[in-house]
Amino acid sequence: MKISILCIGDELLKGITINTNQAFIGQELLSQGIIAEHSLVVADEALSLTNALDYLFSTSDVVVTTGGLGPTADDMTKQVIAEYLGLSFVQDAPALANLNKYWSKRHERNELPDYVADQAMVIENSTVLQNGQGTAPGMWLKVPDNKFGASKYLTMLPGPPREMGPMFTDGVLPLLHKMGSSISFNKLYYIAGIAESLVEVKMQPIIEELKNLSVAYCASYDGVKLFLKSDSEDSTARAEVEVNNIFANNILPENHTDLAEDVVRLLSEKNLTLSTAESCTGGKIAGRITDVPGSSAIFPGGIVTYSNEWKEKELGVSKQTLEEFGAVSEQCVTELVNNLMIKSGTNAGISVSGIAGPTGGTADKPVGLVYVAVRLNDICTVKRYEFTGNRQSVRDRTVSKALNTLRELLVAE
Amino acid sequence: MKISILCIGDELLKGITINTNQAFIGQELLSQGIIAEHSLVVADEALSLTNALDYLFSTSDVVVTTGGLGPTADDMTKQVIAEYLGLSFVQDAPALANLNKYWSKRHERNELPDYVADQAMVIENSTVLQNGQGTAPGMWLKVPDNKFGASKYLTMLPGPPREMGPMFTDGVLPLLHKMGSSISFNKLYYIAGIAESLVEVKMQPIIEELKNLSVAYCASYDGVKLFLKSDSEDSTARAEVEVNNIFANNILPENHTDLAEDVVRLLSEKNLTLSTAESCTGGKIAGRITDVPGSSAIFPGGIVTYSNEWKEKELGVSKQTLEEFGAVSEQCVTELVNNLMIKSGTNAGISVSGIAGPTGGTADKPVGLVYVAVRLNDICTVKRYEFTGNRQSVRDRTVSKALNTLRELLVAE
Repeated sequence: MKISILCIGDELLKGITINTNQAFIGQELLSQGIIAEHSLVVADEALSLTNALDYLFSTSDVVVTTGGLGPTADDMTKQVIAEYLGLSFVQDAPALANLNKYWSKRHERNELPDYVADQAMVIENSTVLQNGQGTAPGMWLKVPDNKFGASKYLTMLPGPPREMGPMFTDGVLPLLHKMGSSISFNKLYYIAGIAESLVEVKMQPIIEELKNLSVAYCASYDGVKLFLKSDSEDSTARAEVEVNNIFANNILPENHTDLAEDVVRLLSEKNLTLSTAESCTGGKIAGRITDVPGSSAIFPGGIVTYSNEWKEKELGVSKQTLEEFGAVSEQCVTELVNNLMIKSGTNAGISVSGIAGPTGGTADKPVGLVYVAVRLNDICTVKRYEFTGNRQSVRDRTVSKALNTLRELLVAE
Repeated sequence: MKISILCIGDELLKGITINTNQAFIGQELLSQGIIAEHSLVVADEALSLTNALDYLFSTSDVVVTTGGLGPTADDMTKQVIAEYLGLSFVQDAPALANLNKYWSKRHERNELPDYVADQAMVIENSTVLQNGQGTAPGMWLKVPDNKFGASKYLTMLPGPPREMGPMFTDGVLPLLHKMGSSISFNKLYYIAGIAESLVEVKMQPIIEELKNLSVAYCASYDGVKLFLKSDSEDSTARAEVEVNNIFANNILPENHTDLAEDVVRLLSEKNLTLSTAESCTGGKIAGRITDVPGSSAIFPGGIVTYSNEWKEKELGVSKQTLEEFGAVSEQCVTELVNNLMIKSGTNAGISVSGIAGPTGGTADKPVGLVYVAVRLNDICTVKRYEFTGNRQSVRDRTVSKALNTLRELLVAE
C-alpha cells in the first residue's frame, strides 16, 4: 500500500510554520511498517491542489491531506476536492453537535453563524472523523472508480497539529489497518545510551540470520530508534527476542520515546527526588525534566550556576578548585553535585559544566569539553565528553548524556 | 519567477528528521518577496526523483534540491540528475582542494579515497557552489533547452542544514537576483509584544492607502513576523515609514528575530546583569537566555524554585504568603524577584509562577494561570496571564511574555 502526504497551506511554503504534520504522519506510518512515498506542500489554491492530487494518485493508493478545512475564506480543501471528485456535500449531525457545543462554550448568546456551521458539511459517502480538539471534522473516502480506475482512498485532516494528530492516530490508522493485508509485522524500539554505529554492529548477526527482516535506524542525541520490519510474524518475533537480549536495559519501556519522561517515571516509581546544578546547559536539564507532567513530585528545584561566583556562592565550590582546576573540571562538577545534594536533600543530583562555545575554548580545554556528574544516593559517576558541533548541539548533547547517565544508575539500582 | 523546493531523503519521509531545510529556504525566498510554489519530499530513489522533477518543472522555473550529494551509496542526486538532463561530469579543482583539506585534517596519513573524491565531480557547465561547512559542493545549472523548452534552472544543495543554509543564502540568492527582474521590493519586520490580530488592525489604514502593497503576518509566541511586498519601491518605502511609526519600539532591530537574543543585546549594551527565579517554566527562561552566545557576560545564574520548599528556603518567600495567597500569586512572584535580586546583586530579575497543567488547576486558579514579575533596578512589573493550551504552550508562552516584558523595560529605560 503506497501512501502520500499532501500538506496544504501558504504558511508552510513561506517557511513560517515548520511542517511538523509531515514528520508526525511519517513517524506514525513508519511505526506501521510503511514509509510514505511522497510528501508534498502546496498553497491554498485550487489548481495547485488538483495538480498535486493527480500527481500523487498517479503512484499512491492513499493520499492524506492536512489543512484547509477551517471556516475562513482561504480554507478550500474540501470544496476543491468535492468538485475534483464530482461529489456533493451532506450535513453531518455529530459534527454539527460538536460545533454547537464548541461555539456555545465561547459565545454564550450568539447562534452559530453560517460560515462556522459550514464545517459540519462533509463530502457524501465519506467516513467522518470527529474532531475532539477543535471544530473541523476530518473525512476518509474512497475515490470514485471512474477517476483513476483502481481503488484509491483520500483522507482529509485539519491543519492544527493538536487536532490532526489524534485524528490520524485514532481515526486514520485503524482504517488503514482494515484495508491493508499489506501491513507488515513490525516493531519500534527506542534505545538510549548507545551510538548508532554500535547499534548497527550489534544488529549485524540478527540481520544475517533473519533474511526477510529489514532494519532501519534513526539517531537523535537522546538515542537511536530501531525499527524492525518483516513480512513474517515469526521473523519479527525472533528478532524481538534477540534485540531484547542484546540491548536489555538500554531499551526504553514500550510507548516511552523520551528520556526525560523515562527518568521521571523511574524516580517516581522508586520514590526518589532529583535536583540539578547546571552551568553550560543553563537550565535546559531542569527544563526537560519539568516538561514532563507530574515532575513536581520528584523535582523540587535546581540552580543554574552559570558564573564562577554563583558556583562558589550558591553551591560552595572552593576557590582553590576554581583556580587550580577551573570551572570545567571533574573536581568542579563533583563539588557541585555533592554540595547540591547536601543543600537540597534530594536522593539524586546532576551537575554539568562545559564550554559550549562558540568562544571560550583553549588548547587544553577546547569548545565542546563538558564534564557531567550524576549522583544517586552514595554512587557518583563523573564523565568527560569532547563534543563536536555548535553551541546548540553541545548543549543538547550534554542534556541527553546527563539524563541517560541518571537513567542508567536508576535502572541498575 | 516560480520556484519549487525538492528535498531528497528517506529520513524526511520517515518523519525522523523534521524538514527544517524547507522552512529555511521558504523563509529566505519570502524575504525576497517570493513564495515557493511547491515543496516536495521524495526518497533517495531514481524514478521518484525524476518524476518529481517532471512534475515540478511543469510549472516552476527554478527547482532547488537538497540532499543526496554525500559520499555514501544512497546518495544519488547528482548522478540521477545528470542522466536525466543528458549531461556529463567534470572534476572541479576548488572542490577537490576543499575535500583534500577536509580529509587531511581528520585522517593525517591516509590519502583521499575515491568514493570521497567523487564529491568533487560536478555536472558540466554548472556554477559550483563551494561548501564552507562540509565536503559536498552544490551546483547551479541551466536545464538544457531541449528538455522543457523555456529557460529552467536547477540548483542542487547538500542536505545537512548547516551546509545547505550558507550555500543557499550566499550562493543561490545572488544567482536568483541576477536572473530575476521579477524580484519585488519587500521588507520583513519582527514585532514583539503585540497580538497578531492587533497588528492586522493597525496595518489596515496602510493597506487601504497603498493599493499595490501586499502584507502577510505570521505569529509565534515570541511575536509576529510582518512581511511587506510591493512591485513599487516607493510603496514599500512609504509603508516602511508608517510601520516604523506605528510599531516603534515593538520592532526588533534588523536581523534580530529572537527575543532572547535581543534581551541579551540590550543588557550587554547597557552593561546590566540578569538573574531568574522560575517555577512553572522550570529553567526554560534561563535556557533561552543562555542559548545566546555571550550571555555569560550578563547572566550569572538562576534558580528553579519548583517546589514551595525551594521558594521558601532558596528565595525566602514567606510561609504566610504561601499559605494566604499560594505559590501562584502576585505576592509570591514579587517576593521571589525582590529576594532574588538581593541575593544575586543583578540589575534585573525575572520570576514566574503558574499552573502549567495538565493537572493542578482549581476553579479559582485554573490551568494556564501564570504570574510573571520582571524587575529592572527599582521598577517592578507584575503581570497576570490566563493562557489556553497544553502544558507545553503554557510554558512557552510564559517564557515569551517574561522575555518581552524585560525587553520593554530595557527599551523604555
